[in-house]
Amino acid sequence: MKITRIIERPVHLKSNISNALVNFSEHTVSLVAVVTDQIRNNKPVVGLSFNSIGRYAQSGIINRRMIPRVAQEPADALLDENGMICAEKVLACALRNEKPGGHGDRAAAASALELAIWDLNGKLQDCPVSQLIRQRYRLDHDGGRVFVYAAGGYYYEGEGSRKLKDELRSYQDSGFTMYKMKIGGASLQEDTRRIEAALTVAGAGKNLAVDANGRFDLAAARAYAQGIQPYQLRWFEEVGDPLDFELNATIASEYEGPIATGENLFSHQDVKNLALYGGMRRNHDVFQMDSGLAYGITEYARMLNEIERRGFSRKFCFPHGGQLMALQVVAGFGLGGSEVYPGIFQPMGGYGNTTQVVDGMVNVPDAPGFGFECKPELISLFANMIG
Amino acid sequence: MKITRIIERPVHLKSNISNALVNFSEHTVSLVAVVTDQIRNNKPVVGLSFNSIGRYAQSGIINRRMIPRVAQEPADALLDENGMICAEKVLACALRNEKPGGHGDRAAAASALELAIWDLNGKLQDCPVSQLIRQRYRLDHDGGRVFVYAAGGYYYEGEGSRKLKDELRSYQDSGFTMYKMKIGGASLQEDTRRIEAALTVAGAGKNLAVDANGRFDLAAARAYAQGIQPYQLRWFEEVGDPLDFELNATIASEYEGPIATGENLFSHQDVKNLALYGGMRRNHDVFQMDSGLAYGITEYARMLNEIERRGFSRKFCFPHGGQLMALQVVAGFGLGGSEVYPGIFQPMGGYGNTTQVVDGMVNVPDAPGFGFECKPELISLFANMIG
Repeated sequence: MKITRIIERPVHLKSNISNALVNFSEHTVSLVAVVTDQIRNNKPVVGLSFNSIGRYAQSGIINRRMIPRVAQEPADALLDENGMICAEKVLACALRNEKPGGHGDRAAAASALELAIWDLNGKLQDCPVSQLIRQRYRLDHDGGRVFVYAAGGYYYEGEGSRKLKDELRSYQDSGFTMYKMKIGGASLQEDTRRIEAALTVAGAGKNLAVDANGRFDLAAARAYAQGIQPYQLRWFEEVGDPLDFELNATIASEYEGPIATGENLFSHQDVKNLALYGGMRRNHDVFQMDSGLAYGITEYARMLNEIERRGFSRKFCFPHGGQLMALQVVAGFGLGGSEVYPGIFQPMGGYGNTTQVVDGMVNVPDAPGFGFECKPELISLFANMIG
Repeated sequence: MKITRIIERPVHLKSNISNALVNFSEHTVSLVAVVTDQIRNNKPVVGLSFNSIGRYAQSGIINRRMIPRVAQEPADALLDENGMICAEKVLACALRNEKPGGHGDRAAAASALELAIWDLNGKLQDCPVSQLIRQRYRLDHDGGRVFVYAAGGYYYEGEGSRKLKDELRSYQDSGFTMYKMKIGGASLQEDTRRIEAALTVAGAGKNLAVDANGRFDLAAARAYAQGIQPYQLRWFEEVGDPLDFELNATIASEYEGPIATGENLFSHQDVKNLALYGGMRRNHDVFQMDSGLAYGITEYARMLNEIERRGFSRKFCFPHGGQLMALQVVAGFGLGGSEVYPGIFQPMGGYGNTTQVVDGMVNVPDAPGFGFECKPELISLFANMIG
């Protein structure tokens, strides 16, 4: 078995939204296809993936550094003991001669390659990636159903709280029971009004999380922590800079409710530091690392190891991502739940029309690999690039 | 005053060496030229730079994300209060819509752009960048002379210690008084023999540093720390993974001599974490952040602020880099000294033939900007890309 070709194409996402810090209209994603010499139904078996959602395509790093290394490697050196292409070996090969440290764009580039190998192996073995993960990491939970929550709660200029409520109500009508909204893009007073409006839909604080997208300095973080405390929200996300472990620890020591962070940490070393220095509280605070931005599933397992050896539970991991890859990762590792961005970041976002949310839960698709085939618009992008 | 064009070109470095972890033969660098509407000697004034040495060109990030943002910005919005193009504003513009965290390849890409603005302003004001730094940050030290040390001490297959001694002797003959050698690419026993051989040239432990390039786990780090302790070396560099602050702190608490790290930290947030959690000892351990890999001089000033507000001294900063930009940064900020890689990483490395090392010191060139014009082979690369 061998890889015959690796193809990368950058594509734009469909979204015209902004959070507290970032306008997403220029955001792009790298689609990756790993073509093999294995034939099924008269066509080569191809592993598909992309580098999650919310940052950028990585055409330069993937094409100039990583694909050449994998292409030059003897095919046998990339196989596991069962003769399948080994995601961990492909990752190590893609990173050969890369220096330690500096886990940013490179981590997202490597993710796309690594995840494509999991999709490939799912297709070759006719099983979903969640099952491959359970086999590889010797996990015996069921994983057939996953809790999902709707992330959104955007700012609507001049539209007050009416549109925000409409937005959350549309998620509720689709079966969601928990919602996340942006804060930090307006004054605390205005955000408080928005939270109260959102709560009229969410029903209770435990059904509503707020996301500051890393915007606050310590003074602002404290003011918001104090201001939102009475609402007993599900969590307070990315309070400050994702690497400001001191600020995170300070807020964790002052704010009673759960805080959440980790979607902008891209290596197990960074996650180790969060676990050691970030003041995260066991069985209370939430980890949100995204395997699609952080070297893939192999590295995600290392991240879980870093937090679990320090007494944190994977049930408090709710990965960033909102796409089929994250869903399979949550189901495979038995994590707490998954984020979804209903209606946006298309065609990468969401799970396709065959997967319905009922009472905040979804049945994990058992299509081979990540099951991208249930999203025709995404599959047509992949088909175009493979040619 | 306005920018009319920004050009980036990836180039290969000349080196056939390897350290404990990395073979440098595939390493590349992004050259950047910022062309303006200002005319001197009938030619437009152009700011030049590159993203240091030792990692990779960043063509994708620079061309797809950063140049378009700067090109779309109204020219006036990039000027400082004196009507000069402002490096800090160009940096902020280049990073617009980038999420927090993930300081890796992006940091190196941004460096090249930011540093080119400093070179540009030096040329427009006919003064070296070191002087611009002293003006901008209100520093009044002299900075006319800088301590430099020779980094090398490579592995020579099958050649024992003879070639290592020859190498260090050649540095000594060029005027260096301090040397750095690689460790961790052989057994501790073999490395100990190499250190003893090197000391016959260096003369005393204080003239010799060793660099593990982030290779060791805790057990290996402890074994080496114990093994090299008797030699009282100048410093023990990048003992473990650059983000493993716990390991760094453990070794700092056990090893008496100075340790050095920081060349693979690319933001002030990461440096803050090193200062808070890495166990670094004031007026003893060494910081090696490289403005050419970490968002440029603007961010380097923020890094200095993070360490100095916690009681560390800039005199213990010896930046990675080994090129003219790092030399001007050391002179401008009044740091401890600068690394040089004699003879390799050409034509980016080193200071040109007009700058001689005498008793381990160099006179800082007072040519405008970074003074790349003293390196004809480098200037011809820039000339080719500007056309």
